[in-house]
Amino acid sequence: MELSIIKIGGNIIDDEAKLSSFLDAFAKVKGKKILVHGGGKLATKVAEGLGVQQQMVDGRRITDAETLKIVTMVYAGTINKNIVAQLQARRCEAIGLTGADGNAILSHKRTNASLDYGFVGDVDQVNSSLLTSMLLLDKTLVFAPITHDGKGQLLNTNADTIAQELARALSMTFTVSLVYSFEKAGVLMDAEDESSVIPTISPTSYAELKEKKVIFAGMIPKLDNAFAALKSGVGKVIIGKAEELPQLLAGTSGTTILHE
Amino acid sequence: MELSIIKIGGNIIDDEAKLSSFLDAFAKVKGKKILVHGGGKLATKVAEGLGVQQQMVDGRRITDAETLKIVTMVYAGTINKNIVAQLQARRCEAIGLTGADGNAILSHKRTNASLDYGFVGDVDQVNSSLLTSMLLLDKTLVFAPITHDGKGQLLNTNADTIAQELARALSMTFTVSLVYSFEKAGVLMDAEDESSVIPTISPTSYAELKEKKVIFAGMIPKLDNAFAALKSGVGKVIIGKAEELPQLLAGTSGTTILHE
Repeated sequence: MELSIIKIGGNIIDDEAKLSSFLDAFAKVKGKKILVHGGGKLATKVAEGLGVQQQMVDGRRITDAETLKIVTMVYAGTINKNIVAQLQARRCEAIGLTGADGNAILSHKRTNASLDYGFVGDVDQVNSSLLTSMLLLDKTLVFAPITHDGKGQLLNTNADTIAQELARALSMTFTVSLVYSFEKAGVLMDAEDESSVIPTISPTSYAELKEKKVIFAGMIPKLDNAFAALKSGVGKVIIGKAEELPQLLAGTSGTTILHE
Repeated sequence: MELSIIKIGGNIIDDEAKLSSFLDAFAKVKGKKILVHGGGKLATKVAEGLGVQQQMVDGRRITDAETLKIVTMVYAGTINKNIVAQLQARRCEAIGLTGADGNAILSHKRTNASLDYGFVGDVDQVNSSLLTSMLLLDKTLVFAPITHDGKGQLLNTNADTIAQELARALSMTFTVSLVYSFEKAGVLMDAEDESSVIPTISPTSYAELKEKKVIFAGMIPKLDNAFAALKSGVGKVIIGKAEELPQLLAGTSGTTILHE
């Protein structure tokens, strides 16, 4: 059975019109599906409004106790429930979840000798039996990037990682297509030229592209993650613009990363 | 099959120690169960922090667009997900929901010729087939007092009403005990004397109590609602302190409202 797991980033969430047209397309995706959303700028705005200082170290937000409250509010409250209500309006039977709900995603607080990230979770386990039951009830799952440690602590967790861990775990039961949407049209030969999308990448062509230094350095971690996902059983990984969701799934837009 | 539906109010939610000991007791309740939580003072605090003016008319909060954002954040985000994580820590398989999730509770925006309550929902329909499926999967459901209109609009909805509508709808499938917890020990003969709890009330004794004006006027709407719930199939309604949950369910504390 086919399952599409689609991750959307802040650039879509922050733009009401873009989000609405993305949800139109998402509601029409055939088969079982999961949406994973990131945060967007609202959390920063709310933090500013409430006078909570955002600590950033090396471009990463440090999640202190007050920041965790805010991201839980904004991600699991405002963003998640608005997406669910909008999908319901499109006759898509969505249920919003965090990793705490039904013990869907268990994680542990990241420990790092050199830097304390605060209440940030690294994923340990996905409750695939629960998620499979809900998918088989024809529910579309909408995940906010919040998990828990099983001891009562919520943890802020990277949305890309959540999408990947869900894809990995659910590959036991489903043929999974994992879509990462971002600002660019796909993996580009030339970072400045949106028309230079590489349509497919396999391990062999990836090695060649890296050797020729054709691939933009910023894409390498994303691609390494994509190949790791394929190795753990995910059917394919697609990278491209959320605005082109039907084309991404059809393989006529974006970059599809394949086993070979 | 037995189902307990338990509504807790703001006095428990605002007090970390009380909430924690309530959740200890709730996690131990045997059989299928649903928790419905209200709001507490956090929404007011966040609104103040963000400079959103709270409009109150006749003691009721008017839910304008900004207030709706805040109650969605606080009720469906912070409060709901923290309760879920804490129940998980107690090995209680909880899933947090709003009425939008899985189209669980459909409502319509309240219209009133004399007063515009804003984004406030009156319940139309409970999706009992979904909720039954989840309860049969041994999930405990935790409801935030937010519903939706099926057209993409979230709506702020009274938690007492949500508990009652869930009880009514699920009485088709389960033998439902509906517990309303509040500050007092139960329905009192003397509003000033916590030891004057009336242990059981039936329609006959209710008529007598009302005639003798023994019942505190403020309790009458709650009791009328309780009798309406019984008429629509709910097994029993119990009113008392959340701190005494096991005793309430055992009938050794609080007031139990019975068919006769």
